[in-house]
Amino acid sequence: MPRPLYVARPIMPDEGDFQRMASEVWKSRILSNGGPFHQRLEAALADRLGVSTAMLFNNGTIALLAALKMFDLPPGSEVITTPLTFAATAHAITWNGLEPVFADVDPETLTLSPDAVEKAITDKTSAILAVHVYGTVCDLDALQAIATRHGLRLIYDSAHVFGTTVNGRGIGTFGDASVFSFHATKLFHTLEGGMITTGRSADAETIYFLRNFGIKNEEEVVSVGINGKMNELQAIVGLLNLPLVEAEQAERRRLRATYCGFLADLPGIGLPPEQPGVVHSEQYFPIVVDETVFGRSRDDLYDALKRIGIYARKYFHPICTDFEPYRGRPIVTTRNVAHVETVKRRVLCLPFHSGVEAEDVADIEKVFRGEVG
Amino acid sequence: MPRPLYVARPIMPDEGDFQRMASEVWKSRILSNGGPFHQRLEAALADRLGVSTAMLFNNGTIALLAALKMFDLPPGSEVITTPLTFAATAHAITWNGLEPVFADVDPETLTLSPDAVEKAITDKTSAILAVHVYGTVCDLDALQAIATRHGLRLIYDSAHVFGTTVNGRGIGTFGDASVFSFHATKLFHTLEGGMITTGRSADAETIYFLRNFGIKNEEEVVSVGINGKMNELQAIVGLLNLPLVEAEQAERRRLRATYCGFLADLPGIGLPPEQPGVVHSEQYFPIVVDETVFGRSRDDLYDALKRIGIYARKYFHPICTDFEPYRGRPIVTTRNVAHVETVKRRVLCLPFHSGVEAEDVADIEKVFRGEVG
Repeated sequence: MPRPLYVARPIMPDEGDFQRMASEVWKSRILSNGGPFHQRLEAALADRLGVSTAMLFNNGTIALLAALKMFDLPPGSEVITTPLTFAATAHAITWNGLEPVFADVDPETLTLSPDAVEKAITDKTSAILAVHVYGTVCDLDALQAIATRHGLRLIYDSAHVFGTTVNGRGIGTFGDASVFSFHATKLFHTLEGGMITTGRSADAETIYFLRNFGIKNEEEVVSVGINGKMNELQAIVGLLNLPLVEAEQAERRRLRATYCGFLADLPGIGLPPEQPGVVHSEQYFPIVVDETVFGRSRDDLYDALKRIGIYARKYFHPICTDFEPYRGRPIVTTRNVAHVETVKRRVLCLPFHSGVEAEDVADIEKVFRGEVG
Repeated sequence: MPRPLYVARPIMPDEGDFQRMASEVWKSRILSNGGPFHQRLEAALADRLGVSTAMLFNNGTIALLAALKMFDLPPGSEVITTPLTFAATAHAITWNGLEPVFADVDPETLTLSPDAVEKAITDKTSAILAVHVYGTVCDLDALQAIATRHGLRLIYDSAHVFGTTVNGRGIGTFGDASVFSFHATKLFHTLEGGMITTGRSADAETIYFLRNFGIKNEEEVVSVGINGKMNELQAIVGLLNLPLVEAEQAERRRLRATYCGFLADLPGIGLPPEQPGVVHSEQYFPIVVDETVFGRSRDDLYDALKRIGIYARKYFHPICTDFEPYRGRPIVTTRNVAHVETVKRRVLCLPFHSGVEAEDVADIEKVFRGEVG
C-alpha cells in the first residue's frame, strides 16, 4: 500500500537484461539513427500490432507533427478534433500551422461524435484527428464514411490504445494513419517515445524522411523533415518492455473487474463502455460522476482520495477549449450544450496499474461509499 | 588503426558508472518529465557554459523549433540563414511556417556574411538564424548590429560550438537565443539531445512551456507547446559525459596541430581560420581544397581516403539550396557568384576525434601528398 498512489506507474524491464543489452551499445558506439535495437523494436511492434508500417519516434507529439505533415494538408486548413484529449493533440495541429476545430464527444464513448464532426466541416477542412480516448475506440465506420464522403484525411491519436484490436484487426491500421505514444505513463513505454502506424507499407518511406530531415542519401535531401529519431537505449527499454505488456494488461483487467464490482452498485457513477469485438488496451479507467444522482461531485471525490494519498486525475480537465491559446473557441455540437462541457466536470481516472493493491482498492471503495473522507 | 574510420566517434561514459546511476531510475521509476538527473544536468550545463538559462531538449532540431517559436515571429515571415549547414537549420524554419532566405557566407569564416544578410533583409524579415559552422564563430558584433538596427531576432545554431568562449564569454549568451545539439556526433552528447540557452533567466519559463505542452499546472495550459523533454537515461549519459569533454577536446587540439603541421605546406589546401579570443569547441576540422592550385579535387581526395577505409565528409554538400524543397531558391550575395557555391565543392571534414591514431594521420598525409590513392 505505498502512498502516494498515482494513476499510472510504468512497467520496468529487468535491470540485468537492460544492462546486458546496453553493453552492446557501449561496444558498438551506435547510439541512434536507426541502430540495430531500433530496427528490432520496429519489426517487433509491426508484428505485435499487425500493421504494415510501424515507424518509431522520439515521442508521440513529434510523431503527431509528422503524421500531420505526411499528407501535405494545405497551410491554414482546418483539422477537426476533440477537446477531450491531452494538450498534444491540439498543439500538434496548431504548431504545424493548421487550425484546430473542436467538435463535441459522444456521451456513450466520450470519443468524437460523428454527427458533430459532420456539422463542423467547412470548405477549409482538410482532416479529422480523432482520439481513442482512455482506450475507448472511436466510431471507426462512421468517421471513415465521413472522411471518405468529404475527401478528408482521417488520423487517429492512438496514444491510449496500444495493442487494441477490433474484431481481430489491429487498431493501428484504421484511417490514414495512427499515432501512438510510448511515454512513461503509457501501458507500453520507451521512457519517452512514439510511433506512426499505417496499413500501407508504401507509407514507410514518407515517414522515414519526415523523421530524419528528408535525407535520402549523402547526396539527396528530398523533403522537409525534422528529427524524430529514438535512440538505442530507449529501443532496448522497448524491446524488454514489450513481453511484459500482456501480464500488466491481465492485472489491469482484474483491477477493472474489481472496480466495476463495487462501482456498478453506485447510482450516479458511470463506467467506461463495453465495446463488443474490441480487445481493450487497459490504458485508463475513467468514471463519470453525476453529482445530481450520486450526491457528491467529482472534485469532492478527487479531494477525498487525495487526503489519503491517492492521486486520481481529472483527465481531461481542463479541456482544450479551456487552454489560454484556444479559450473562447466554439465546440461544434448537435446538442443544446456541448456534452464535453458537462463531462469535463465529471470525469475521473482512478489509479490503474499493477501496483494498485487490494488495500488501495478497499480504501477507494470506502471513499466512494462515504466511509472515509 | 581501426577501419572504417569516420569523421566523428562519440565519447562514452564509463559503463559501470552509468549502470550505478541508472539503478536509481529503476528504483524511483521517474523516467522523464524533468526528473532529478535532468535537473542536475541542466544546472551543470548552465554552469559549464556560463549561461543564465539552459533548457534541455530531446534533440537539437526540436530545440530549434522551440527557439523559433519563442519570439512569436509572424507566420510566413522571413528568416535569413546560411545554406552551408545541416538540413535541420533550414527545415526548422520551414516546419514552423516561416520562410528561409539564404544568404552567402564569408570566404574567411564560412559563416553568414553580414553584408549578404543586410542585402537579404526585406520588410518581411523577422529573424536571423546564424550558424557557428564547424566550430568557427560568426561575426557576432556585425550580426548583432544588423539585428538591432532592423529590429530582428538573432538566433544562433550553436550545434558545433559546445563550450566555446569569446573573450571569456560563453557563446550561448550571444544573440537572443542559442541552440545546441547533443547528438551522438557532437563533442558533448546525450545520445540524442539538445538545448536552448540565453543570457536572460526570464526566458526559462517561456522555453519550459514550449518544451512541455504549455502546461503551467494541473489546471492551466498557457501556450502552444510540444514535447521536447529529455528522458532520465539520456540525462545520466550527459552527466557522465560532461567531465570527459575536456580530455577529448585536448586530444582533438593535438590532432588539429598535427593535421595543420603537414597541410600548411600544401598549396591549395585552406585551413580553418584562427579566431583571436575564441576558445574553440574542436567539433570539426574542415579544409578547403582549391583544385586549381592543389591539382586534385576535393572529391578525388574523398575517394582516395575512402579506398583506404577513411570516411571523410563533404560537409556541407549538398547545401540547403540543393535540397529538393529549396532547389532554385536564390542565395543572396554581394559577390558575382555566391561563395558558398564554390566552397561546397571544396570543403572536406577530416576524421576528428580521440580515436584517430598516428597511423591514420600518416595514411591521410600520404593521400594528400599523392603517395597513396
